[in-house]
Amino acid sequence: MSEPDERRVVYDGKLIDVVVERWGDNEREIVEHPGAVAIVPVDREENVVLVRQMREPARKELVELPAGTIDEGEEPLATAKRELEEETGLRSGEWNEVAAFWTTPGFCNERMTLFVAEGVETGGEQNLDEGEGVELVRWPVGEIASRLGEIEDAKTLAGLLLYLRLRT
Amino acid sequence: MSEPDERRVVYDGKLIDVVVERWGDNEREIVEHPGAVAIVPVDREENVVLVRQMREPARKELVELPAGTIDEGEEPLATAKRELEEETGLRSGEWNEVAAFWTTPGFCNERMTLFVAEGVETGGEQNLDEGEGVELVRWPVGEIASRLGEIEDAKTLAGLLLYLRLRT
Repeated sequence: MSEPDERRVVYDGKLIDVVVERWGDNEREIVEHPGAVAIVPVDREENVVLVRQMREPARKELVELPAGTIDEGEEPLATAKRELEEETGLRSGEWNEVAAFWTTPGFCNERMTLFVAEGVETGGEQNLDEGEGVELVRWPVGEIASRLGEIEDAKTLAGLLLYLRLRT
Repeated sequence: MSEPDERRVVYDGKLIDVVVERWGDNEREIVEHPGAVAIVPVDREENVVLVRQMREPARKELVELPAGTIDEGEEPLATAKRELEEETGLRSGEWNEVAAFWTTPGFCNERMTLFVAEGVETGGEQNLDEGEGVELVRWPVGEIASRLGEIEDAKTLAGLLLYLRLRT
């Protein structure tokens, strides 16, 4: 059984929709999201580059991996390169997909692909969405392990931990 | 600025609501969620205990850390002990909070607290919600590192990676 018996849209939004699906005797409330990417960008000076921005749902600024939403029909790697350049001005480097996962599979279908981009360079054109005030934060790779306690975002925690494992 | 100028509920659901907030010139669509917990449970035989279950939003079964939603007014540790026993029948052990994070801070206010529970024992009463078919999966702790590629859930990836770091 991998499709619902019934399905109705209960909220048709801008970024997300909400559907209620019936699977046998159970109803499931599901947030529909187009999917996303996140990037662990490491520059030529061996800094990981993070972004600090206001996150209204959290009511505070968070430090996170650069990330973004997949446009319709776009390949995750293309989204990742586009978003990294738009948010940070960084580009080039050597790119590898290191994981893909659901962010909150209990109630949302967002699937995220995670990339590591090593040796990225400035020179791209930073181009932020309206209202997207982003401050770049650089951490020397050697400091990541001792600063994980500052991270309050799931994808960033997973991405940095995975990067530390891959390096060793 | 840590509160919106305007706020309206656009979907009032069972587990989640959706609100649209105006922050200055920007509108934000936000999924409201009561918050959650996840547990890395390790039994006395040095196995981590995971759950395999159908996740309708992903259209497939996923292997995940035991987890659940916080009831109104409940402390995260109490939720975690209750959910672990309900999903797996495991209880007691030594509990430590190891992280707290937003799961998808771009569009949802779900905050998750992550616990490690070492030395848990069978003897509790498994008590699954309606339609919650859960299969227990035990991995020897020594196999976690080589099996991370089987994980397709963000909290589980973060939790297992964090547990591996804390052990060493």
